[in-house]
This record gives sequence, C-alpha cells and structure tokens, in this order.
Amino acid sequence: MYTAVDIITAKRNATELSAEQITWMVNAYTAGDVSDAQFAALAMAIYFHGLSDDELFALTTAMLNSGTTLDFSDLGKPTADKHSTGGVGDKITLPLTPLVASYGVAVPQLSGRGLGHTGGTLDKLEAIPGFCVDLTEHQIRTQLRDLGAVICAATAQLAPADKKIYALRDVTATVDAMPLIASSIMSKKLAEGTDTLVLDVKTGTGAFMQDEADARQLAEKMVWLGKTYGVATSAVLTRMDTPLGYTVGNAIEVEETLEVLAGGGPDDVVELTLTLARHMLAGAGVDADPAEHLANGKAMDTWRAMLTAQQGDPDAPLPTPSHHHTVTAPESGTLSRMDARAIGEAAWRLGAGRQSQGEPVQATAGIRLHAKPGDTITAGQPLLSLYTETPDRIEPAVQILEHAIDTTRTFTAPELIIDVIR
Amino acid sequence: MYTAVDIITAKRNATELSAEQITWMVNAYTAGDVSDAQFAALAMAIYFHGLSDDELFALTTAMLNSGTTLDFSDLGKPTADKHSTGGVGDKITLPLTPLVASYGVAVPQLSGRGLGHTGGTLDKLEAIPGFCVDLTEHQIRTQLRDLGAVICAATAQLAPADKKIYALRDVTATVDAMPLIASSIMSKKLAEGTDTLVLDVKTGTGAFMQDEADARQLAEKMVWLGKTYGVATSAVLTRMDTPLGYTVGNAIEVEETLEVLAGGGPDDVVELTLTLARHMLAGAGVDADPAEHLANGKAMDTWRAMLTAQQGDPDAPLPTPSHHHTVTAPESGTLSRMDARAIGEAAWRLGAGRQSQGEPVQATAGIRLHAKPGDTITAGQPLLSLYTETPDRIEPAVQILEHAIDTTRTFTAPELIIDVIR
Repeated sequence: MYTAVDIITAKRNATELSAEQITWMVNAYTAGDVSDAQFAALAMAIYFHGLSDDELFALTTAMLNSGTTLDFSDLGKPTADKHSTGGVGDKITLPLTPLVASYGVAVPQLSGRGLGHTGGTLDKLEAIPGFCVDLTEHQIRTQLRDLGAVICAATAQLAPADKKIYALRDVTATVDAMPLIASSIMSKKLAEGTDTLVLDVKTGTGAFMQDEADARQLAEKMVWLGKTYGVATSAVLTRMDTPLGYTVGNAIEVEETLEVLAGGGPDDVVELTLTLARHMLAGAGVDADPAEHLANGKAMDTWRAMLTAQQGDPDAPLPTPSHHHTVTAPESGTLSRMDARAIGEAAWRLGAGRQSQGEPVQATAGIRLHAKPGDTITAGQPLLSLYTETPDRIEPAVQILEHAIDTTRTFTAPELIIDVIR
Repeated sequence: MYTAVDIITAKRNATELSAEQITWMVNAYTAGDVSDAQFAALAMAIYFHGLSDDELFALTTAMLNSGTTLDFSDLGKPTADKHSTGGVGDKITLPLTPLVASYGVAVPQLSGRGLGHTGGTLDKLEAIPGFCVDLTEHQIRTQLRDLGAVICAATAQLAPADKKIYALRDVTATVDAMPLIASSIMSKKLAEGTDTLVLDVKTGTGAFMQDEADARQLAEKMVWLGKTYGVATSAVLTRMDTPLGYTVGNAIEVEETLEVLAGGGPDDVVELTLTLARHMLAGAGVDADPAEHLANGKAMDTWRAMLTAQQGDPDAPLPTPSHHHTVTAPESGTLSRMDARAIGEAAWRLGAGRQSQGEPVQATAGIRLHAKPGDTITAGQPLLSLYTETPDRIEPAVQILEHAIDTTRTFTAPELIIDVIR
C-alpha cells in the first residue's frame, strides 16, 4: 500500500503526509519492516521541513498507540503529571512529586535516565541506598492509591515507538527537531493517562532549545497536543542559562531536595517547585498554597513514605565522594555568568552522567556551586567544588569549565520564569 | 578523533566539512563503524545543503580510494570510456564500444544492471545466448589488448564505498542529490583508470535529472572532477523525453544494436553513437570519422569478436517473447509525445527490469515503438507492441501507458544533442 521511499520522498519534497502514511511508517518502523536508515532519512527531512499540525498530531498518535496506555481513572483521585525538557541541576521532580501528592493528588512520575549533559531523575534517586526505580504497573497503581507519589522508570510497553525513534535520533543528529521533540514527549506523557499535565520548557545554554522563540513554539505545540487529547495542559517557559540550585550531580541533588522539603533550600529551586505545584494543583481542582506543606513537613512525610515504599532508606546517609577539587574565582566583581551547559558537561565528565545508554553513573560525582550570578565575589574564593570517584577526570572537567564563568561590575539575574502558556 | 554525530550535525547546519572529516566518514561507513542510519542522515543533509567543490572532491576521492583501481597504461594503446546517466532504450554502449575499439582504442566498459525504469547494459547483453559479463581483471586486460572492446560487470573491489552508499541511497530517497550522483559516477569511472571519459548526461522525463539546468550542473561538476584527476573529460547533454530508438527491453535492444552495426538503425541511436564515438576518438588522439566503420562492417567484426571472447554466440538467434499485446493510436494527427518514463516503467513491469537488486529479468520482455514524435499517425494504427513471458503483466503495463502518448496538429521533435560541455 505504502512504501518507505515514497513517504521519505514526499516529506523531502515538502509534501504534507497523510495520517495514514505517518501511521504506516511508525508502525512499520516499530515492527522492523522499515529500516533505521529509512527512518533516519525521514527524521532528517522532518528536521528541514518540519511537520504541519495534522502531521504532528498523527505522529504523536501513532507513537502513543504503539504500546499500552495507562488509565488511573479508577483511583478515586485526580492525577497530575509534570515533564521538564531537561536542564542542569534540574532536581525539581524530586521535591515536587511528594509535595503535590501530599494534597491528595496522584502523581505518576514516570521518568528517564540522563544522557549527555542533562541529568536523569532516576540516576539521582538511585543515589539513595536501596531505592528501586523498576516497579510493576500493579505496584505503581497501589502506591498511587496509598501515597499518591511515585517516581519510577517508564515500562518498556509504554510508547515503544518513541524509545526506538529516540535512540535513532540520538545517533543521527536529529534530536533537536522541534516536532520530533514534541511528539516524543507528548506520546509518552499521554500514554501515562494523566488528567493534568504541566510542562517545564527550558531555554538557554543548558537547554536543548537554546533559542527562546523555539522553546516557546515547542511549548505551544505541546500544550495544543495535550488539550486536543483532553488533558488539562499548561507550559511554564523557564530560563536555563545557570544550573538550578547549588548542586549538579546525583547524591548532592538529593541532598538539596531534602533542604527544600525541610522548608529551606535555594530560592530558584523553591520558586520553580512551587510554580509547577500551583499549576498541577489548580489542574487537579485543589485550592491550596503548596508553600504550606513545605513549611509544615507534610511534603517531607510523603517523600519519606515514597522512599520506604520503593525500598529506599530515608534515614541512610547519602554517599560522599572520594576526591574533590576546588575552582576559585579568578577575579573580584559581580558574578554575571555560570554557564549551565559547561557545568552540566563537566559534571557529566566527572562521572555524574553517561556517554552511552546502559553505562553506570557515579552517585557521588558532580559539582557544587558556591555562588550564583548576581553574587559579589572576591578573587581566590571558592566558586565550584568538583566531586568524583575517578581523580583523572578532574583535569578534563576543569578544562571544560575554563570559559564558563564571567564577572562584571554590576549584574542582576533575569527572572527564572519567563512565561506561562495555557 | 571524529564522531559521526558531529559530522552529520555540521552538514545539517550547513557548515563545510573538511576533507579529513569526509574521508573519515566514508572509511568508517565502508568498514561498518558508522551505521546505515548515520550515513542516511548525512545523505539527506547533503540533499538539502549540497556540497562545496572541495567537499565533492574529497568525497569522490574517498570513494575512489575505498577499493582497488585499474591501470591500463601498459596496454600500448589509448583508453576511452563512456558513461550515461541512464535513460530509456539507451543501448548506446553496445554499438559504441566495438565501434571505438575498432579504431585501435581500448574501451573498458565496466557496466551495471538496471534498477527501476532505466535498463541495464549487462541485462541487455545477457539476452545473447552464452554471453558472460563476469570477467577477471586478467581477462579484461587480455581482451582490451587483443580486441579493445570489453563490456562486463564492475568487480566488487572497485569503489566498494560507492556500492554501499548507492544501495543505501536507493532505499532512503537520496538518489537524486546532485553531488551524490556526481561522486558515485566519477569514483567508479576514475577507478577504471581511463585516459579519456565521455559522459552522456540525460535530461527529460525519462532521466534521473528531469530539469535541464540540474543536468547541466551535474555535467559541469563531473567534467571538473575528471579534469582535476587528469582525465580528458567531456559531457554531452542529451534529451531523454522519448526512448532512444524503437526498442526498450533486452533482446530487442540487442536486435536494434545489430541494425546499427550493420550500417542502418534508427537515426537517433546512430546520431548519439557517432557523437559519443567522435569525442572518445578525439580524446584518444585518433583522427577518423567513426561513420566509416559502421558502413564498412569493421565495428560489426569487433562486436562479433567481443561476443565470442565473452562466450556469446554471435550467430545464435535472439530469444523471442511468448506473449504480446498491441497498443493502437487513439486518434489521427502528428505524434507529439511518447513519454520515456512511462514506457520505461511499463517495460520494467513487463519483466525487462527488476524491482529489487538480484532479481532476474526477462530477456524477451519489453516494448517496441512503431512511431516516434513528429510522425504522422492514423487512429487505430499500431503504436506500441508489448512483449512479456507473463501475460498478467500486460494489463498493468497498459495502464501505465494510458497518458504516455499525445497527438497534435503539427510537431517538430527537438534536437537530441542539447550541448557539449568540455
């Protein structure tokens, strides 16, 4: 009926594909009847010509329907989910999930691992002794009913087309094609069967979408897709030029999460956690100020219960690194730049992230920031602490950081939250 | 040193690749270290952004150097080679090779098989009982020395990168990217070690390059590449809106070849054969009018000797088809169009060509034309004879031909030879 070459040719020639052609292509690729080479050629043609709204909807639908979908409508409580397009020091899922769940909302946070300079939520949680990220659908359902909070790995049955396409894009320089990002995120999130979805779309040096206009367009397309599927979807456009908080890594990001859940923590992490929580609670029909459960410890209680349910020990000490190195301020002034991408890459090289899928990560590796843009610094003061288990990785990480820091006379850090798209 | 993703990303972003990057990519792909998916993504990025002259030269060189190269400088006679970009009814290699060889020039015509609507020289020759297209390098060398004329299959050791890249382009809709066509043709032809190269670059409905400006650009790039390598290269830009001659297929094209070698044959086949022969002889330093050896039978003598040397029987009758069907003229008038692509596709469907590599073809299948554009025709007169061994293929072929023929009041066929590029 269809052939891959005809479909690739059409997209290459900027001819709009029909929903039937797109569905055929996704199904044939998932089944192995269309080769990696053919789907890679199509992905590159999509990089150049984009997708119309109809094509984007058809692609997302085909990917969503490639596997099983979850349905939590019988839980007796509203569900809300959050997705971040990925940043440096982005541990927000960790405090946010128990915080929102503590208000009686089910938060099925099916997460991924890190690849490249952005960290992965599952890698961070696995720094907690005993914590298990692999749950059955039955365990997820029970935990959502009893506690509301679950952070675990997406099952292989969920949007398998996305898994296959994502792995292909990763090796063919087609990751940063807007419609492919939108369909990848939304097919997974829609398969998770949530009522409310809040998207944290990041822009800046540490984000996939460096350009704000591109990030805004991605946010708009994803909100449109979510609403078309009847999911209450909103997107928060946030700045990712500087890491979130003062920690980038695994165990040290959990440490910072505990500060936030204890009612303290860095201003930016708290601000973003509360902003996303407000949108999730509003979508779930809960009229409450989430700051309350950070202050009174109820979010921390849910966190500890979630850890226990997933075999983690909330009282076990977090692992500490064997080796560290301090980067000091080269000159005095006001810190104007602490580049998120460079710090993310350096943390990754230190062992916090992986180069290829399946590699283990070091729980203790990472970077601690001692100042943030806008702070006054003095030449020679510690700016960054580098942590690793493998000391020969310190020198390459220091090299990556060489041009990551700028100082100036005066500097005011821009707002973290750029806009909200509903 | 290099990674495939970095190279694909650079080309995708229209950054010029270095010769080292291109060489690395071609070698890694040929060795299997770069995947089909990665090379397909690169090919599609090249489709969109093209290649600079330096990139094209580096790509052609890397493909040329991926295997062995031939050297006929010790034969004691000049060598001349011809390549056609492919058309319908294009049997020119068959009379041209013995014609030029009959003047004391070595013509090592390493040819391919047909794929899709254009026929293959080897498929045509194999319609001759006994004819063998697979020769060793020693056989090729001996035959060139003794007769001058060889038409055989390219050995697997010649430009293996091109073979792998061509098979990939065929399934990923990246065949008609100009720099990929130029590097594919020229890497093979340069590996054959000829002194003189004449290119027949076709444009029109039956050609790969339908647009004349594209065909001219391809011709110019190939002539530039050939000269840069020190080969006397010229290109003849020819029209391919109508099949060449009155036959499209295998055995019936050999039949027409015999008419030309006997001093007769269709005007267009004779004109193109003589034009290309003149350029080849001039490049080889032979001052002669090739029409002479068609008239006096010397070209036919070389043809018969070549067949005998390659185990073919020059006196054996050619096979004839089991089934035929006649398409008649729907109206009277002057024939203004007999579409090369439709006739090529119909002949292919009748069994003259193959759908995928390795499939056998029918020696007897094809189409005979009874009139050409410019001829006056009467409603009901036979226009096309369809031949096949499989009668159920006649109906689909007739359908393809439905809109292939037009008549008008008056029509003058345009010149076959559009231009010569030196």
